[in-house]
Amino acid sequence: MYELYIANKNYSSWSLRPWVLLRGLGIPFDEKLVPFLGGVGANWDAFRTFSPTGKVPCLRDSDTVVWDSLAIAEYVAEAHAGVWPADRVARAWARCAAAEMHSGFMALRSVCTMNCGVRVRVEAPDAALRKDIARVGELWNDGLDRFGGPFLAGAAFSAVDAFYAPVAFRIQSYGLRLDEASQAYVQRLLDLPAMREWYAAALAETWRDPEHEDEAHRAGTWLQDLRAS
Amino acid sequence: MYELYIANKNYSSWSLRPWVLLRGLGIPFDEKLVPFLGGVGANWDAFRTFSPTGKVPCLRDSDTVVWDSLAIAEYVAEAHAGVWPADRVARAWARCAAAEMHSGFMALRSVCTMNCGVRVRVEAPDAALRKDIARVGELWNDGLDRFGGPFLAGAAFSAVDAFYAPVAFRIQSYGLRLDEASQAYVQRLLDLPAMREWYAAALAETWRDPEHEDEAHRAGTWLQDLRAS
Repeated sequence: MYELYIANKNYSSWSLRPWVLLRGLGIPFDEKLVPFLGGVGANWDAFRTFSPTGKVPCLRDSDTVVWDSLAIAEYVAEAHAGVWPADRVARAWARCAAAEMHSGFMALRSVCTMNCGVRVRVEAPDAALRKDIARVGELWNDGLDRFGGPFLAGAAFSAVDAFYAPVAFRIQSYGLRLDEASQAYVQRLLDLPAMREWYAAALAETWRDPEHEDEAHRAGTWLQDLRAS
Repeated sequence: MYELYIANKNYSSWSLRPWVLLRGLGIPFDEKLVPFLGGVGANWDAFRTFSPTGKVPCLRDSDTVVWDSLAIAEYVAEAHAGVWPADRVARAWARCAAAEMHSGFMALRSVCTMNCGVRVRVEAPDAALRKDIARVGELWNDGLDRFGGPFLAGAAFSAVDAFYAPVAFRIQSYGLRLDEASQAYVQRLLDLPAMREWYAAALAETWRDPEHEDEAHRAGTWLQDLRAS
């Protein structure tokens, strides 16, 4: 049985990616949730006990440690169908789009950090954030048009959707506006049973990590906090 | 025949990764070098004509566009042996290590930008840079010990070595010091025929991109410039 190490569901966008991939495809795993302790250094020391980078997610399969989200997708793809699209061209597109998220969208990721349970109004998105949002919309429309939807690389939910799953929560939390086709895709992601399960668990968490809270406060005006207290 | 779009060999670390992978494995391709124009915005407009992100590298295979370095490795791996190690555990490790570079090492990448032809003394590496360098050494030693070398994931050069190839040039340019095993591995990378070919071409380039030059100047004291003028 895979063991998947993750951090707080409210905050950890990188954890969400392999979690929703495995859950969405019905691949069994043991969830090992290790909450953030507050302070990047403290987290790093704690997470180093199970992950060589001191970061989550980390998948363990007996003695094999797979310490990166994209590598987890490829590792699981070698044993399970459906991680990537069956069609060769759709698969290449899906891997590019997932990798683009893996290495990019720095403004979106740093300004609108994932914080599932809050609602924040971003008063004046800067040029870098606007550019990231525009590229997300362009990319999603390209995939939906090219492969016919309703998911990014065709009819079935796959790893590329999992890589953009945190963006759905960011759009919801920060009230970001995209075109109609993109907003409909966001709603499809949010409606997935795996996403609803993650969201409910995120809202039920009572841990608060000061750094993540500060980031969400810096993004704009705090409108609502839906989390359990 | 694959077409591989790249930018200046002196500067473009992302271009080097798939280029040295293909060349190192003897996979034929047409090189399409589009030099930086000066200014991130100007480059983006020019590179958008062949790459959806406005970034290099970008591989084109007839109608299929593969616009990310890691996705290029996976795309090519579906058609050619040797891109990843044949052993399942070594392959998982190699993908993790390559992905760790793909999304990380921000201090190393931003402070010690690739500039093959110059020699710079970094006067006082900050904590983030020291941490990145320490992690590179730790990771390399782990791979070399675990799989027996002389390459990171075993006896053969593979995509994970290609992903760290730019680090070899950075270590050479900025005089960074690692442990003995890591330094020996750097030398093995620099001695590869494909790396020597890239390096000679980088030194022969007479283009100068002000932003890349400024980055290398900011890193420390300029000692030497080996490039053709």
